[in-house]
Amino acid sequence: MSGVAVGRRVWAIAEGYIPGQSVSGDRALVSHETACILNASDEDAEIAITLFFTDREPCGPYRTKVGARRTLHLRFNDLADPEPVPRDTSYASVIESTVPIVVQHTRLDSRNPNIALLSTVAFAA
Amino acid sequence: MSGVAVGRRVWAIAEGYIPGQSVSGDRALVSHETACILNASDEDAEIAITLFFTDREPCGPYRTKVGARRTLHLRFNDLADPEPVPRDTSYASVIESTVPIVVQHTRLDSRNPNIALLSTVAFAA
Amino acid sequence: MSGVAVGRRVWAIAEGYIPGQSVSGDRALVSHETACILNASDEDAEIAITLFFTDREPCGPYRTKVGARRTLHLRFNDLADPEPVPRDTSYASVIESTVPIVVQHTRLDSRNPNIALLSTVAFAA
Amino acid sequence: MSGVAVGRRVWAIAEGYIPGQSVSGDRALVSHETACILNASDEDAEIAITLFFTDREPCGPYRTKVGARRTLHLRFNDLADPEPVPRDTSYASVIESTVPIVVQHTRLDSRNPNIALLSTVAFAA
Repeated sequence: MSGVAVGRRVWAIAEGYIPGQSVSGDRALVSHETACILNASDEDAEIAITLFFTDREPCGPYRTKVGARRTLHLRFNDLADPEPVPRDTSYASVIESTVPIVVQHTRLDSRNPNIALLSTVAFAA
Repeated sequence: MSGVAVGRRVWAIAEGYIPGQSVSGDRALVSHETACILNASDEDAEIAITLFFTDREPCGPYRTKVGARRTLHLRFNDLADPEPVPRDTSYASVIESTVPIVVQHTRLDSRNPNIALLSTVAFAA
Repeated sequence: MSGVAVGRRVWAIAEGYIPGQSVSGDRALVSHETACILNASDEDAEIAITLFFTDREPCGPYRTKVGARRTLHLRFNDLADPEPVPRDTSYASVIESTVPIVVQHTRLDSRNPNIALLSTVAFAA
Repeated sequence: MSGVAVGRRVWAIAEGYIPGQSVSGDRALVSHETACILNASDEDAEIAITLFFTDREPCGPYRTKVGARRTLHLRFNDLADPEPVPRDTSYASVIESTVPIVVQHTRLDSRNPNIALLSTVAFAA
């Protein structure tokens, strides 16, 4: 399998929340939220992410790229431009791509000594 | 991205259960269940939620609003009118909106010293 | 909202596994797996469940009913006829209904002192 | 129910990550990632899995078979040919079948003394 375009160009994640605390400073175990993006196509994907909040206008676009036949596990924690994602704050996101991609949403919560996980395929618009 | 209507007008969550106990009284960590709603459109969304139970007629509608380009992480714990959601009780919900929205269902269970999480995009009817 | 048929008539859950151990004998906290079924229609739903295994022919149908405008959080642990669901064994299921329903799959794993949860909307065939 | 083809022929899992550590050596509790595959049809399914990475070309196909009316809970940990799946490394997968199947993605993370779980139906392409 190579070069098959699998997925959609617009995705939404209605749940977003990065806990502000973690029992570990280890990057693998710090509380984080991820948009796992798969670009199985033969073209690079230009990605634009818009964040939505409870009580203010959307923020974005945050721009990134996922190469042809590559996956990117993008941490919302790492987004910086135009501004960092606030912690302990509810948000949502819309992810737009120039080529079909697949998006899965995952959170690792390490506020407690033992981690908790959640994951779901995002909504394909 | 602005003003693009992403989603559907009718959603269902077949799983519902708010644990009656929590190890923490902190609002962030009390056992709760959430319908995360994203309204990426340019129109306010009027939302009506109906709850279904095992052995009695449905209850509702519970009414709320999600502004244009806003997200609402609605806690079922906070619903009060026409009546609170019973704890330790199985329920399900149908969420109807006047404009397309995206709905994701999340539970934080803190009956144990360490939290457990689950999440899934709801069923788009 | 009343009497709107939401959902599909055939659903599949590819993941199935009931841990044989639990730290608690409390029904709420014993390791269990659930098919949460919502029948938002005005007709009773006759449900037939078929279980699939790794190395033998399917088993079923297991029959149950979900009344009009009712939800049933069916525990696979409780299935008995034609035979109980084996513990610590991989299985999968297909759920068929006479009217449209919505199905969500949830597991509570209490092999450890703290529970773990997973959930996903089932696959609508 | 017998011999009904439920599902799709191409599936994608955008999230993939096998933790390199586990508190237990017990096969049931070691950190693992699973693609639960249901073949409810009357024909054997020939399966081809391709893995995608962050910074190198895809790897595969990994080949397996799921018999007619059988389920296979395939551990990515067990894949060996053409090469094992690296631990502590982000990946994604595309699963192709000769007959319709249903795929659900599950991870058990036992880096902590208590396990964490996630699961979602994969993306049906």
